[in-house]
Amino acid sequence: MSLLTVGTLAFDDIKTPFGHAEKVIGGACTYISWSASYFTDNINLVSIVGADFPDEELKTLESRGVDLSGLEIKQDGKTFFWAGEYHDNMNKRDTLVTDLNVLDDFDPVLPEHFKKSDYVMLGNLTPSIQAQVLDQFVDRPKLIALDTMNFWMDIAMEELKAVIARIDLLIINDEEARQLSGEYSLVKAAEMIHELGPKSLIIKKGEHGALLFHKGEMFFAPALPLSEVYDPTGAGDTFAGGLMGYLAKTDDTSFENLKRAIIYGSTMASFCVEAFSLDKLKVLNQDMIRERAESFKKIASFTL
Amino acid sequence: MSLLTVGTLAFDDIKTPFGHAEKVIGGACTYISWSASYFTDNINLVSIVGADFPDEELKTLESRGVDLSGLEIKQDGKTFFWAGEYHDNMNKRDTLVTDLNVLDDFDPVLPEHFKKSDYVMLGNLTPSIQAQVLDQFVDRPKLIALDTMNFWMDIAMEELKAVIARIDLLIINDEEARQLSGEYSLVKAAEMIHELGPKSLIIKKGEHGALLFHKGEMFFAPALPLSEVYDPTGAGDTFAGGLMGYLAKTDDTSFENLKRAIIYGSTMASFCVEAFSLDKLKVLNQDMIRERAESFKKIASFTL
Repeated sequence: MSLLTVGTLAFDDIKTPFGHAEKVIGGACTYISWSASYFTDNINLVSIVGADFPDEELKTLESRGVDLSGLEIKQDGKTFFWAGEYHDNMNKRDTLVTDLNVLDDFDPVLPEHFKKSDYVMLGNLTPSIQAQVLDQFVDRPKLIALDTMNFWMDIAMEELKAVIARIDLLIINDEEARQLSGEYSLVKAAEMIHELGPKSLIIKKGEHGALLFHKGEMFFAPALPLSEVYDPTGAGDTFAGGLMGYLAKTDDTSFENLKRAIIYGSTMASFCVEAFSLDKLKVLNQDMIRERAESFKKIASFTL
Repeated sequence: MSLLTVGTLAFDDIKTPFGHAEKVIGGACTYISWSASYFTDNINLVSIVGADFPDEELKTLESRGVDLSGLEIKQDGKTFFWAGEYHDNMNKRDTLVTDLNVLDDFDPVLPEHFKKSDYVMLGNLTPSIQAQVLDQFVDRPKLIALDTMNFWMDIAMEELKAVIARIDLLIINDEEARQLSGEYSLVKAAEMIHELGPKSLIIKKGEHGALLFHKGEMFFAPALPLSEVYDPTGAGDTFAGGLMGYLAKTDDTSFENLKRAIIYGSTMASFCVEAFSLDKLKVLNQDMIRERAESFKKIASFTL
């Protein structure tokens, strides 16, 4: 099945206690697409970059099965740039610079053949832009997933709720779930978010795993305890990419398969944080992915 | 097998957003013993109270299989008293009052028949008092577990490390593991703590579950997402009590059985927080426990 991915391609500048990566490739859509590409070679990418974005990066994406006909390249523009710094324990980060650049003019237009994409992953973007993508579908996709952040809850809650009402699967972290619902208990937050529209909700909790709420059922997904986290940038997008890539590959949105999709998403995210930028994501193979997924199974299994 | 439990019996005054429980029964050893009593009726309790501690509470404990011959009742003393208040989301609490009272004179002396206890649970106490209990054993128990808190790391780190060197299983929370080891990564913290002596380490993470590190193996135990937490007081002790009660019942300290013991400990803790004080812990039965344990299995199970 085909997977539509919408979001940023970017340059990142990342400081962590382990080093400083200057002007490396980043962006939600990059992480999503790379991660998904290990599960499907039928990916339709919608994004915007400036003339400064390396052609080689785009060629590599194409070689992974990513259709770039929905990518706008603005010859007189510069690519979105983000600089951030992580402290001590990696679970606190400061944004140092956000240069929207070409993202200011992002007006996503889906090529005709993208409008029949089966699965849709809307990366974190202005809610109205996410809605604009959905407006262009003639038939409803099989599953629409959306990522967002607290920033949009602060400044555009109504637009955000309007687009959330149109999707199937919301993927956010625990803080965001609490802010969106006004409930501290994640069980209550999930009930409230279901009422907004999505029948499925994934709450990401970083090193504490993830929770899936789906039509009254619940799944507690483990995280893999790691010795070192070198760079958490893109881990959430990599999670979403692996998850959606797996769903597109298997074309099965049952509770049991959503659980597997979360494990594969978590598997990809656990690789992502082991190196700066996309460095680790670019050198994986199916054996590595299978073996890592098995280790999730191993650490979480018990009998009564 | 017999289980020795050492720790406080107390009066608690607890304020939560759900209400105010005044001068209710509390104390680590109370929660540990009640929780363990659903798995074994061979519990040896060592503690101290004043003349103000209700005789009825002691009789109920005895009826649950708790041998009180190691309980000192100081006729001229008052029972340990703790008052605390939880805020908003229940994961922050302020201690308002700590009246040690008779605890100041706690000089645990094990009755002769206690010195052959098979399993030992040392509740959170001054490390030197915990050591004094171990000094009285002639033969080494099958498994010694210890709980402690950051307070002892602040003021008595060397004494604490000395007693930790003598135990098999350390049960602490994530913050405490980080403070004890000086490592943020829990995997690294576990390695460092193994070097202190214990071959097994359980790191409690509250609503995020628990991690078991045992002889190079790892287990990620789920927590049950709950709609409401009424009173978290005693949840950690209830966890330890269920865990140790299950070990004493099954007399099996293998990795697989330790995993089951954690699930039963988590099961008991999930009941504990549903009401103030020991209210819920006092009205359980085997069916309720089995059913709740099954729900842990259900939310954590997946196939690849």
